[in-house]
Amino acid sequence: MKPLLLLFLLFLPLFSIASQDPHILPRPLILELPSHGGTEPSIAGSAGGEAEEEGEESAELRRLRCSSWRFAAEANNLGPWKTVPADCAGYVREFMTGRAYKSDLEIVAQSAAAYARSVRLAGDGMDVWVFDVDETLLSNLPYYADHGYGHELFDAHEFDKWVEKSIAPAIQSSLKLYEEVRALGFKVFLLTGRSEGHRTFTVENLKKVGFQDWDRLILRGPDDRGKPATMFKSEKRREMEVDGYRILGNSGDQWSDLLGSSLSNRSFKLPNPMYYIP
Amino acid sequence: MKPLLLLFLLFLPLFSIASQDPHILPRPLILELPSHGGTEPSIAGSAGGEAEEEGEESAELRRLRCSSWRFAAEANNLGPWKTVPADCAGYVREFMTGRAYKSDLEIVAQSAAAYARSVRLAGDGMDVWVFDVDETLLSNLPYYADHGYGHELFDAHEFDKWVEKSIAPAIQSSLKLYEEVRALGFKVFLLTGRSEGHRTFTVENLKKVGFQDWDRLILRGPDDRGKPATMFKSEKRREMEVDGYRILGNSGDQWSDLLGSSLSNRSFKLPNPMYYIP
Repeated sequence: MKPLLLLFLLFLPLFSIASQDPHILPRPLILELPSHGGTEPSIAGSAGGEAEEEGEESAELRRLRCSSWRFAAEANNLGPWKTVPADCAGYVREFMTGRAYKSDLEIVAQSAAAYARSVRLAGDGMDVWVFDVDETLLSNLPYYADHGYGHELFDAHEFDKWVEKSIAPAIQSSLKLYEEVRALGFKVFLLTGRSEGHRTFTVENLKKVGFQDWDRLILRGPDDRGKPATMFKSEKRREMEVDGYRILGNSGDQWSDLLGSSLSNRSFKLPNPMYYIP
Repeated sequence: MKPLLLLFLLFLPLFSIASQDPHILPRPLILELPSHGGTEPSIAGSAGGEAEEEGEESAELRRLRCSSWRFAAEANNLGPWKTVPADCAGYVREFMTGRAYKSDLEIVAQSAAAYARSVRLAGDGMDVWVFDVDETLLSNLPYYADHGYGHELFDAHEFDKWVEKSIAPAIQSSLKLYEEVRALGFKVFLLTGRSEGHRTFTVENLKKVGFQDWDRLILRGPDDRGKPATMFKSEKRREMEVDGYRILGNSGDQWSDLLGSSLSNRSFKLPNPMYYIP
């Protein structure tokens, strides 16, 4: 029953505290990706490669540590990370392809729907639900299946090619929630880190898999390049507020979809142990 | 591969959106406990009692759903809840008494320590780390072992009697973090929802299990009674800021330790699937 001594190698950002404006970002967030440190952090001090033979005890221990890593990621306890820890590549693949990911998605969508039904809308058409797109409405799992489920370093060029195919499937629990909040009378705004140049592909993809009649689709314009997602999305939510909208719900798989400023009244964090967007 | 149809019975608050001041509470939080709904929510539509026999498939499915419930709780996706769902009582007991809870605690403490080491302190004695007490520095697991690990409704009178024994053990990973941040030069402020009347018991307990030389111990005074923890703790953090302190780290097992206003630069959410404090 001794606490396990886990040598959790974190790659740390050397960021300046002072550079964070607490008014823009009222909640703790490190915005800069680490400029150093391994891109394949390990959660075990002396763990071998995945292919290495290991006993049942060691496999169980690894599973336990990877589960704790996932909890820490989902509760926003980790600093920025570039890839899934090497030791947890198999764990994350199992999580994403097994029943657990879908089960987690279902419960979040059900919590969100229950909240949506509990809200009394003003009836003036100014109550908004914001949805992120990738890993929130659309699933890029077929892409990540070919790229190690977050174990490989993100390749923007390769991912762009995938986006331009417009074939990402819908996350079914999100589609159901989407339809329910629309039926309840919320305005639906889609707010994505995809670039304006991908608008047509994104619209085609969304429509093809069942998403209809959103009220706004907001993508990154030329002025938004290089902005951390937290800042870009906070600015866009601020514009909604300036236009008189009330943001009552927000669904996203990244904390950078949900935190910052001009926050939604309630936010819903969908699971995603594959990547981290600051 | 069809999504599991989970009949997740949420007990919903009928709260007023308008009653939440977004300036006091920049992040979505429902502050009022639900005034109706079951206190023993079930995560399965037709689940029997815990003692009921069930097949392996059904036990695995329950485990999966309870794991998703825990994820949703830890990512702050659920509304306020009064007890662990009846179906998940066994799951939470296993989690708390097995290796998983300690493993989760370890990784959070290690993330926090890594962050603490990465910060350049100003050296003027004004850099602060805030710690919550219950389930953050001290473990009430012996109490909850006698009270269903969160499956029973919280009994303030019984819990007071426990607090007055001053025998809660230290959470070892937190003690290590506590000592490290002190050694690094942080001021350490303890901010707890315990009442001022429990100061002596709390000091005795903390010292007995190894916590030494904190700079402030802030408890609920007579004016703080009935305030949601988010508000009470935000006000106290605001007072620290007014005194010129910079809150660089905050460790707590409840989102109400970490959210609200006057937020810490980084926050660390310790696991706690046993209870929810608004």
